[in-house]
Amino acid sequence: MEIYLDNSATTRAQREVVDIVSRVMYEDYGNPSSMHQKGVDAERYVKDAKEIIARLLKVQEKEIFFTSGGTESDNWALMGAASANSRAGRHLITTKVEHPAVAQTMEYLESIGYEVTYLPVDSKGVVRMDKLEEALRPDTILVSVMHVNNEVGAVQPVEEIGALIKRNNPKTLFHVDAVQSFGKYKIHPKKHHIDMLSVSGHKIHGPKGTGFLYIDEKVKIKPIVFGGGQQKGMRSGTENVPGTAGLGKACELIYKDLPADVERLYELKRYFTDRVLEISQVQVNGPLYEEGAPHIVSVSFGGVRSEVLLHALEDRGICVSAGSACATNKHTVSATLKSMGVAQDMLDSTIRFSFSIFTTKEELDYTLKCLNELLPMLRRYTRH
Amino acid sequence: MEIYLDNSATTRAQREVVDIVSRVMYEDYGNPSSMHQKGVDAERYVKDAKEIIARLLKVQEKEIFFTSGGTESDNWALMGAASANSRAGRHLITTKVEHPAVAQTMEYLESIGYEVTYLPVDSKGVVRMDKLEEALRPDTILVSVMHVNNEVGAVQPVEEIGALIKRNNPKTLFHVDAVQSFGKYKIHPKKHHIDMLSVSGHKIHGPKGTGFLYIDEKVKIKPIVFGGGQQKGMRSGTENVPGTAGLGKACELIYKDLPADVERLYELKRYFTDRVLEISQVQVNGPLYEEGAPHIVSVSFGGVRSEVLLHALEDRGICVSAGSACATNKHTVSATLKSMGVAQDMLDSTIRFSFSIFTTKEELDYTLKCLNELLPMLRRYTRH
Repeated sequence: MEIYLDNSATTRAQREVVDIVSRVMYEDYGNPSSMHQKGVDAERYVKDAKEIIARLLKVQEKEIFFTSGGTESDNWALMGAASANSRAGRHLITTKVEHPAVAQTMEYLESIGYEVTYLPVDSKGVVRMDKLEEALRPDTILVSVMHVNNEVGAVQPVEEIGALIKRNNPKTLFHVDAVQSFGKYKIHPKKHHIDMLSVSGHKIHGPKGTGFLYIDEKVKIKPIVFGGGQQKGMRSGTENVPGTAGLGKACELIYKDLPADVERLYELKRYFTDRVLEISQVQVNGPLYEEGAPHIVSVSFGGVRSEVLLHALEDRGICVSAGSACATNKHTVSATLKSMGVAQDMLDSTIRFSFSIFTTKEELDYTLKCLNELLPMLRRYTRH
Repeated sequence: MEIYLDNSATTRAQREVVDIVSRVMYEDYGNPSSMHQKGVDAERYVKDAKEIIARLLKVQEKEIFFTSGGTESDNWALMGAASANSRAGRHLITTKVEHPAVAQTMEYLESIGYEVTYLPVDSKGVVRMDKLEEALRPDTILVSVMHVNNEVGAVQPVEEIGALIKRNNPKTLFHVDAVQSFGKYKIHPKKHHIDMLSVSGHKIHGPKGTGFLYIDEKVKIKPIVFGGGQQKGMRSGTENVPGTAGLGKACELIYKDLPADVERLYELKRYFTDRVLEISQVQVNGPLYEEGAPHIVSVSFGGVRSEVLLHALEDRGICVSAGSACATNKHTVSATLKSMGVAQDMLDSTIRFSFSIFTTKEELDYTLKCLNELLPMLRRYTRH
């Protein structure tokens, strides 16, 4: 029995994704920079992936750039834009609940002379618009906000945020880390005032080591990787053709039946949330039901350490996360939960359940059964 | 008929590499940062790959860091080491025949205040040791030299270079771009005075989008990608587990029968070189036979433009390169050939034939037959 409820950490690749990756590696293995047919064939896969993504986002193909993943996309958006626009100002804005790929890059930028404002969030993990308005300055060159929080599923009002930023100063760039939201929400950067958008392949049943950064053609940005001039000189290095083909396929598949898939996820989420709330000393963090993302339920189980519960569930074949598995610094207290004001004793008792299109009601029933069996026992043995 | 003689641009993945990549994507798809068994299983693949590579290089496992490819490895080695050691000096040394991943990064470093000396090469493309000795200064913090040149197969005397650098100043770091040499030569960084070594997966029948940087534990270097703190904080971003597993497998396979494989490649090279030299108005660039790398033969065909010959060969199913296919700036005249003093009229008439373990004598016979048929015809039609 294996029940994988850690889909915000990573997902199983779709069969069709594996197939195209394998085919490209073994048969259409050319280098897109080569002038012969084998190179042209390889280039076709990259173009196809670009076409799929551009269509989904309603943007131009030339505005899509492939990277090695969400982390590189975030790094590039922040460092590349900060560097290219430093004459206009050196003030950046982000939130207190970002993924480390943004938070750590911001810290680096502070170390080289940029000033960063970190916006607080409310008890549901949502950015306070009044605080954003206060923070915006004439020298603010970039605002970076994650769309869906990876730990609690809080959804930021990106369209509203974008509108506020642009009303204040049309030149201030707006970057959105969409790693947890792409494939769950329809995202149209042009409509939502988004200038740059980061996406990762392995969160949507695509290959690890793949991702893209959407960059509006009007954005001034510098490359952060130098070399052979691939991707119009913006991201050098031989294109990861199999990975990119797999990413394109994953994007296509995840949006194929989006409304139905999301509805099903919300049904699972509601079902699981309602039943988990019947357990004593339990609180669900972040927005409930449709107010939050369809695939993430963060639960604090009072009186049990999350690590203990995680391993007890693991013994029953259930994979969950104690925090955000995107960071290897496994024992750090979650900045997100802290920023939301989660009580100290609950911080260490939090488990994230995250679903995918492969998750079934039977799996959740089994998980709930295990929780109900394990919790009384574990709580008895927890030292006070 | 498909004859692929562009193996310096990229290679076909080995079947076993494709198999492990597929398996990890579909079955062992966990995130190494996850605390449950699925994460532990994923981490195992990364550890295994590290173990294989460390054993081959005779270095410690903790000195191997995975990247998105040779370009990122080169960028990181140069930028990360320059930044970490800038207090000791801001002088860097490289050669005039580097891959753009090094050359362009050096240019970037010049733009932010570093000084770079570009060493000349002799007519065979080999770095002049007297010039290196002249160039070394007390404030030289880093020397970067590619092991095997991707365009002509010239082999730099890395061990000798390393010894000279360290004799001069043990603190000066030595970086080697081994993208074209790894899998063809035994490389032992500790013995060869190499502090950092860049390798790419897709040049050795591994996956595109993979590579590693060996960093001697004593080297002071900063990360250039920030985030979740993966790989001991040195390279953030969820590990490309399938790609890394494939890279490990490719490394293992390419070194399995190295002496026999290399001998076979040299036989093919000698056979091909001797016959191609029988054609009129032909010159082979770079070192001949065993003096150069076993898999690259650069040939200038007087009186024919390389692009024309390339497409004529393509029509016969033969894939070759007009220059280095690692750069998309396809029509730039080769800096390597120019630095070697290749005559102006030959620069534009150069074709690179590059072999792999899959290359056969029959394929070379067919290629030679086509060359002998095509050249008289093409030369007749070339404008003078």
